[in-house]
Amino acid sequence: MNSFTVAELAERFALRVQGDADVRIDGVATLANGGTHKLAFLANPRYRSMLATTPAAAVVLREADAASSPVTALIADDPYAAFVKIASLFETRSTPAPGIHPSACIDPTAAVDPSASIGPFVSIGARSTIAAGAVIGPGCVIGEDCHVGEGCELVARVTLVVRVRLGQRVLVHPGAVLGADGFGLAMEHGRWMKVPQLGGVDVGDDCEIGANTTIDRGAIDDTVLEEDVRLDNQIQVGHNVRIGAHTAMAGCSAVAGSATIGRYCLVGGGAGILGHLEVCDRVMITAMSLVTHSIREPGEYSSGTPLMDNRSWRRNAARYKQLDSIARQVQARNKEKG
Amino acid sequence: MNSFTVAELAERFALRVQGDADVRIDGVATLANGGTHKLAFLANPRYRSMLATTPAAAVVLREADAASSPVTALIADDPYAAFVKIASLFETRSTPAPGIHPSACIDPTAAVDPSASIGPFVSIGARSTIAAGAVIGPGCVIGEDCHVGEGCELVARVTLVVRVRLGQRVLVHPGAVLGADGFGLAMEHGRWMKVPQLGGVDVGDDCEIGANTTIDRGAIDDTVLEEDVRLDNQIQVGHNVRIGAHTAMAGCSAVAGSATIGRYCLVGGGAGILGHLEVCDRVMITAMSLVTHSIREPGEYSSGTPLMDNRSWRRNAARYKQLDSIARQVQARNKEKG
Amino acid sequence: MNSFTVAELAERFALRVQGDADVRIDGVATLANGGTHKLAFLANPRYRSMLATTPAAAVVLREADAASSPVTALIADDPYAAFVKIASLFETRSTPAPGIHPSACIDPTAAVDPSASIGPFVSIGARSTIAAGAVIGPGCVIGEDCHVGEGCELVARVTLVVRVRLGQRVLVHPGAVLGADGFGLAMEHGRWMKVPQLGGVDVGDDCEIGANTTIDRGAIDDTVLEEDVRLDNQIQVGHNVRIGAHTAMAGCSAVAGSATIGRYCLVGGGAGILGHLEVCDRVMITAMSLVTHSIREPGEYSSGTPLMDNRSWRRNAARYKQLDSIARQVQARNKEKG
Repeated sequence: MNSFTVAELAERFALRVQGDADVRIDGVATLANGGTHKLAFLANPRYRSMLATTPAAAVVLREADAASSPVTALIADDPYAAFVKIASLFETRSTPAPGIHPSACIDPTAAVDPSASIGPFVSIGARSTIAAGAVIGPGCVIGEDCHVGEGCELVARVTLVVRVRLGQRVLVHPGAVLGADGFGLAMEHGRWMKVPQLGGVDVGDDCEIGANTTIDRGAIDDTVLEEDVRLDNQIQVGHNVRIGAHTAMAGCSAVAGSATIGRYCLVGGGAGILGHLEVCDRVMITAMSLVTHSIREPGEYSSGTPLMDNRSWRRNAARYKQLDSIARQVQARNKEKG
Repeated sequence: MNSFTVAELAERFALRVQGDADVRIDGVATLANGGTHKLAFLANPRYRSMLATTPAAAVVLREADAASSPVTALIADDPYAAFVKIASLFETRSTPAPGIHPSACIDPTAAVDPSASIGPFVSIGARSTIAAGAVIGPGCVIGEDCHVGEGCELVARVTLVVRVRLGQRVLVHPGAVLGADGFGLAMEHGRWMKVPQLGGVDVGDDCEIGANTTIDRGAIDDTVLEEDVRLDNQIQVGHNVRIGAHTAMAGCSAVAGSATIGRYCLVGGGAGILGHLEVCDRVMITAMSLVTHSIREPGEYSSGTPLMDNRSWRRNAARYKQLDSIARQVQARNKEKG
Repeated sequence: MNSFTVAELAERFALRVQGDADVRIDGVATLANGGTHKLAFLANPRYRSMLATTPAAAVVLREADAASSPVTALIADDPYAAFVKIASLFETRSTPAPGIHPSACIDPTAAVDPSASIGPFVSIGARSTIAAGAVIGPGCVIGEDCHVGEGCELVARVTLVVRVRLGQRVLVHPGAVLGADGFGLAMEHGRWMKVPQLGGVDVGDDCEIGANTTIDRGAIDDTVLEEDVRLDNQIQVGHNVRIGAHTAMAGCSAVAGSATIGRYCLVGGGAGILGHLEVCDRVMITAMSLVTHSIREPGEYSSGTPLMDNRSWRRNAARYKQLDSIARQVQARNKEKG
């Protein structure tokens, strides 16, 4: 188990110590739960009342809160960021050894860097390449003409169907499917005709793709994620979507085909964006909202109605059907009156 | 094929027979479809009219409906519960033999009980333990430091990423991913920094986890499902969520990080619960509602609007944007009027 | 790389050529991006302005647009359908060779046609049958008593749990799970009792099932998809649902148990249909709408509210809770007045 003195942590991350710098830290904890040799943090003022009684051995906090700390304090301008970096020291993921597991099934035309690690029950298709230091976990399926960049990790059971190119240090969680057929159909003589999906998927450096998230490949051009895009679990990205750098999308959100999302956007859980729309940079969409038109101005956008007890909701929701009629009556009265 | 006389069923489940107790039953059916030697049930009064013409050989029903039955009746206080128990007699799942399939890839530090069954293409990581009678189906991936309790079943292609502990008799359906990284990010200098996810997932006895459902592990403490929690397919449970015993969630619902849900709650399909909220015991959330604040009182809660034909909907929805203005006008008129 | 002259394409698909019929085409492109030897199309009038400057070598378009084409034109009544057929010529999916990969694990009572292709790490359970020309990709799990029809393709990591029958030419994308337990529960003495799921799943010819989509098997009778049903990614279909022929559902939509959907319906992304409802033929549900009652008339249906900037939304949404009260006040005024 890793352990550090508070003094060592302070030096490593340029923080100031108040109290006993020799306190030894071997892990992190919440303010409420704490624990011997555990480090907690206080960033959200909501939790300030927990500081006085924290069982933690030390706390990362702002200068302004230092006086209230009953234990050793590590003082930071951004206590959460400092805590995150310290917490990373206690991560204990074992790095799999380089090399190809004997059970893996690799096409003779595929190229795997000797420093990459290929786990059990992995299959890799024709002409695909796995770069240096990449980790392909158990049960992953990589189809034809894919590229996995340097330092990528496909945790387990990830599928790259065809023509999927991952930049460097892309992290893909289990069950994610990249490069499946986009949903392209044309009706002819009363039956669906399938539209061939000839494009691929391009994922930039430092992207993260959540568990069971799906990103379809493009119909003609590619589906694109720029660098540092962060997708949570169970997200659906349609064909030919483009998501700008540093945009983060929460679980169960979805973007329909050919929509373009800007940089530094935040999409709330379960939110939807219709196809062929454009959303500019720095837009925030709240949870379960539906974006039905392009957004040209940065800012926060919402749709939906508030939560109510079901009886009140039934009464009010029934009136929603009369809303236009109510509005007309109010206007008519105003006119009479006016 | 299993078969029983009505008399045998009556004795086994303490039911009363009306009519021919020697009728032989070899399976179950709906009232409408019935079939020779098939048993149907009548619980919902909506279907009472189907009783007279049912082609079933016998029917489980309430005392009050017995007189109307044209066929042998099994009389129960709770006909649905009785039917469920009888139906279970006709389930024909083959139990896989104990032992480890030769293709499985098991870390030398993992421990598998000799009575457990490990299917083909399963991988089990360091320090993980599989208890007595557990069944790990084809293609499952179990990472490091996991525990699968007695009598659990992971049907196929389930992933337990790391630090996932399942109680006894937990049933996990294909494609489910437990213990993936929670979605923790901090922005620093215009780039996302990943928050390490040091916790695990704790799943209580008798829980059921649906196909392609995802449950992330905690950031610091664990994500927790208490006993007898029932999750349908494609549900997303964020990091550090706690779900109380006997709560059931329908397909595509989602709970964001650090929310706490009480016991005996029912969450409708596609409903969402925002992060850090608390929902007390015995709350029912209707389908596709969004819980935006904590709920302190048991009862039924909803959000959303009624379904309309698109033309009416367009007219009314447009007025939603004027709702505050309409309300102000109505208030102003009321004031004038006094 | 396949290539054709415009003359060859015109003859093959009965189109008329305007301009140089000897132009050689080796792929397709968008009007905007074009490319030497690339064929683009113009169907949506919105993109007409791009025609003049297209870098494509030739364009498929309507008679009415032919005069404006700066390059060789292929004239079609339905340019999109013609383009789709031409594009299919440039699809380069390699067809896996017939035969069973040595790593596959096949029950001795299963039957695999010699012309089928079974990929690596596939397992096939007792009494299941794989028909002629079917392709079972890497990592698929096929349980007991399943049937995969002629010419089906299970791309990779598909699970057919038990009693799943696929017609001919069904295409199933990675991560899809068919035939998992329906979500059937009965509460008894304060604990959930599992309702056995004794039915199966029947999928008609020419259906397509998207990545990570889930279709549960029936409780008593089967869950049914009629022919030519097209499901996008991450769709949830509950037990005993019936979906009519030629219906298409977009990503993340869901149908709860025992609902019946007609033929030629279109269900928008993220839309939900409650259990036990009936939706007639030729119904279109817009994105993220919730169907709360049966629909008896063809047409377009919606629920939800428009997108607004968050400040306006907060103001208007708060009034939604007063909607019934507002309506009553307006009615009262009208009565006074009337």
